[in-house]
Amino acid sequence: MNGAESLVRTLLTGGIDVCFANPGTSEMHFVAALDRLPGMRCVLGLFEGVATGAADGYFRMRGQPASTLLHLGPGLANGLANLHNAKKAHSGIVNIVGQHAGYHISYNAPLTSDIEGLARPVSTWVRTSPDARSVAADGAAAIAAAKSSPAQIATLILPADAAWNEADGIAEVPAAKLCPSYSPQAVDVAAKILRGDGSRALLLMGGGALSEHGLVLAQRIAGKTGCRVMAPTFHPRMARGRGRFSIDRIPYVIDQALLLLKDFRHIILVEASDPVAFFAYPNKPSLLKPQGCQLHRMTDWGENSVAALEALTHALQAKPRDSEREEFAELIKPTGALTLTSIAQAIACAIPENAVVVDESITSGRGFFPLTAAAAPHDWLQNMGGSIGFSMPVATGAAVACPDRKVMCMVGDGSAMYTIQSLWTQAREGLDVVTVVFANKSYQILRSEFESVRAGEPGKRAQDMLTLDRPALDFVALAKGMGVPGRTVTTADDLNKTLVEAVREPGPHLIEVDM
Amino acid sequence: MNGAESLVRTLLTGGIDVCFANPGTSEMHFVAALDRLPGMRCVLGLFEGVATGAADGYFRMRGQPASTLLHLGPGLANGLANLHNAKKAHSGIVNIVGQHAGYHISYNAPLTSDIEGLARPVSTWVRTSPDARSVAADGAAAIAAAKSSPAQIATLILPADAAWNEADGIAEVPAAKLCPSYSPQAVDVAAKILRGDGSRALLLMGGGALSEHGLVLAQRIAGKTGCRVMAPTFHPRMARGRGRFSIDRIPYVIDQALLLLKDFRHIILVEASDPVAFFAYPNKPSLLKPQGCQLHRMTDWGENSVAALEALTHALQAKPRDSEREEFAELIKPTGALTLTSIAQAIACAIPENAVVVDESITSGRGFFPLTAAAAPHDWLQNMGGSIGFSMPVATGAAVACPDRKVMCMVGDGSAMYTIQSLWTQAREGLDVVTVVFANKSYQILRSEFESVRAGEPGKRAQDMLTLDRPALDFVALAKGMGVPGRTVTTADDLNKTLVEAVREPGPHLIEVDM
Repeated sequence: MNGAESLVRTLLTGGIDVCFANPGTSEMHFVAALDRLPGMRCVLGLFEGVATGAADGYFRMRGQPASTLLHLGPGLANGLANLHNAKKAHSGIVNIVGQHAGYHISYNAPLTSDIEGLARPVSTWVRTSPDARSVAADGAAAIAAAKSSPAQIATLILPADAAWNEADGIAEVPAAKLCPSYSPQAVDVAAKILRGDGSRALLLMGGGALSEHGLVLAQRIAGKTGCRVMAPTFHPRMARGRGRFSIDRIPYVIDQALLLLKDFRHIILVEASDPVAFFAYPNKPSLLKPQGCQLHRMTDWGENSVAALEALTHALQAKPRDSEREEFAELIKPTGALTLTSIAQAIACAIPENAVVVDESITSGRGFFPLTAAAAPHDWLQNMGGSIGFSMPVATGAAVACPDRKVMCMVGDGSAMYTIQSLWTQAREGLDVVTVVFANKSYQILRSEFESVRAGEPGKRAQDMLTLDRPALDFVALAKGMGVPGRTVTTADDLNKTLVEAVREPGPHLIEVDM
Repeated sequence: MNGAESLVRTLLTGGIDVCFANPGTSEMHFVAALDRLPGMRCVLGLFEGVATGAADGYFRMRGQPASTLLHLGPGLANGLANLHNAKKAHSGIVNIVGQHAGYHISYNAPLTSDIEGLARPVSTWVRTSPDARSVAADGAAAIAAAKSSPAQIATLILPADAAWNEADGIAEVPAAKLCPSYSPQAVDVAAKILRGDGSRALLLMGGGALSEHGLVLAQRIAGKTGCRVMAPTFHPRMARGRGRFSIDRIPYVIDQALLLLKDFRHIILVEASDPVAFFAYPNKPSLLKPQGCQLHRMTDWGENSVAALEALTHALQAKPRDSEREEFAELIKPTGALTLTSIAQAIACAIPENAVVVDESITSGRGFFPLTAAAAPHDWLQNMGGSIGFSMPVATGAAVACPDRKVMCMVGDGSAMYTIQSLWTQAREGLDVVTVVFANKSYQILRSEFESVRAGEPGKRAQDMLTLDRPALDFVALAKGMGVPGRTVTTADDLNKTLVEAVREPGPHLIEVDM
């Protein structure tokens, strides 16, 4: 058994059975090992950002890391932006990067680069395996790192000779380092705050707290104490839809966020950060909470927020009957022109039961959240790292993780063009992903940001950097080029109908919403 | 004048008048400054790898750096692979990367990352500007670094507040650090070797030596001394075509390279490296030169190789009449089926006078080099860093640098998919680029590499990682999606005709060669 086979066997033993890959020469022994080891599903991407984003989406939906397989420093470089997003979302990934044979590195062949240096900014754990006999143990350590709480990006660099030389066999995966479940003291303090000053307290919930059960508990706590429950502007995964406690997010637009938070005296953090502005703006604060508002951390990332919320409901004696009441509006099937409201209404009607919604709709989608609260129950995934080109790869990985669920990917036209290659992987794997592209033919967000940073009024040359209309992108043609059927819609009625059809038919579909 | 404007003015003063950009919020003040300063041509890319590769192509053809404008760490990350290629080609780039306002970084907003850490592996010079009053001087230092000999990737990180706060004005660009022109002693040693043992000497020329005049001089030296003149496997730019000294490259395939070099006793390096294998292979050497072969470095990168070759011809008394004789074959217009030979013949016929050929044809193009030696005079650009997704961005930048020349971009289907977004920029800017995609529907190179690394015979699952036929990519549809007219050709006759039309018509075109 060579090093590559010892690694693949170790991955399988450690429960890693999906590999999102874009391999090259130095990874051919890993690829060859796949033939001998039937348990590993290897999913090819045409660009590395597809592979790394898919691994993020896979982790979010499956709760277990996948591996990647990338080709040397430049292959890793192409995957870094979505590893950045995954790291910020606390997703676990066993990120495998090929390397030249150890003895070959000093000759500075064209592809030689500082792979560890490239990996470090996006990885919590980085190791280059020194030889074939070490590969299995290094792989096992990477798996344990990826499965820690909080989960980690573990980058294992695999030199070609460590892959092809003789190894000893598989290695046992050590126990992952787990956080304490939660701090009972932190729960007691939270209970005290909520009992004493609940109406001026914000329970700010991210991470695992946004699961279906976490939200049930939060709804009781809100009803019992009068506190407000919200999510940060962006979250890795939230259980939503009819019958579930629908909570708002802190708005992206800084003035709206400052206004919304201005009266809180306490913010209780449940796997969330002290809220900060996404960008700095001249003469605006970085921190969004008002002066004098006190922060209390109840759980950190990797702790068991649901258990902490359970303990908090007990401490507060919050019962199911205390749950804050919620009325869900009837869904409205829109008609007529495409507007941001009619688009949101059409999407709310079309989200199928148990769907996974991946949201990178940027400006077009800012109002989607409240309007989809009454949709059929679903999970909603967002970009935690702010690097665009997030949603299509994440949707791809989510679909691999959940073959029995429909995935809806909502993406702006600008964002879609960073990792458009995702469509090919969706076609190849027959994944049930409906991609909805909001084609406003501009980097619309930058138009408002231009004003927010007080850069004045964009003139002709600045406008040129914000517009995508010359030439207009034809997403139906792009999808066709990658084997995905697509349609352009220009009315709300057409959008309703096209969404229903796309959701009903198996395999990937693309809908271009011509705005 | 704010920091952004002081930077743009300093760039213009320093001769940097093109910016390949994919900006975001933190770069809006730079974008706003473009409105006030008419001299800067800003070229938008839909993906950062397009911008960085275009800057590489621009430098190779113009001999002067362009700037980039990238959005924070993830934007830089997406541009790293082509910066890697540019660094290996010794291209100069003023690589400008936005950053959060300095005071905002500690709050760890979503896009916060270690930008300097990401930049260092691909940059020779990295600096974060501390405040608005420093930006102009830092920009001037970046320009000087980019223009050094050898040229450099100079990464200037521009915090948002350094862009929007008040600055003092422009800064003078310091003198670039230049190498000595060349070493007369090194030329004397080369002359002695060539006089004594010319028939067993290889003059291995890269960099500036591959200019039209460098090759004229080398042809005299070869005729006078009987030495062999070759180029490394990959070179940044070579003057080629009918009437020019046509030299071979060291083959990519290791066994062919070893065979070709086995009888040389001396290798004289002219802006070239000790030849090494592109990858390591089991039981094969990394270094390609035979045992006992001596290396002599005549010029290093950044030195004036043409002046050194002049001095060498003088030392050897090599006159124009000594030039090695060369017969150029008649070009053959192929007919019938598409084969690697008929494709190369068609391309040789179609290359227009003074064209720029950007070559990322990988396996399909291995035989193109000898068959295009008799084409009309042209420049031929190759990938020095091995990171695929190189050619379409480089062709884009070359076309911006040389609006009066036709650019032919030859690319494999696998490679094309990494930076396919280049087509949109070509359409937007009306660039004269003819992209020829060799659609063999596989990562063909990996099929042979699989065998070369002794990974055995690929089985079904390994084959799956090497093939692109499920679904087949439709490059004509992809081009249409980005506003570029395209055609698929299936015969040599059709290829001849389509190439002629595409070269004749202005603006970008794509030809999919269905192999």
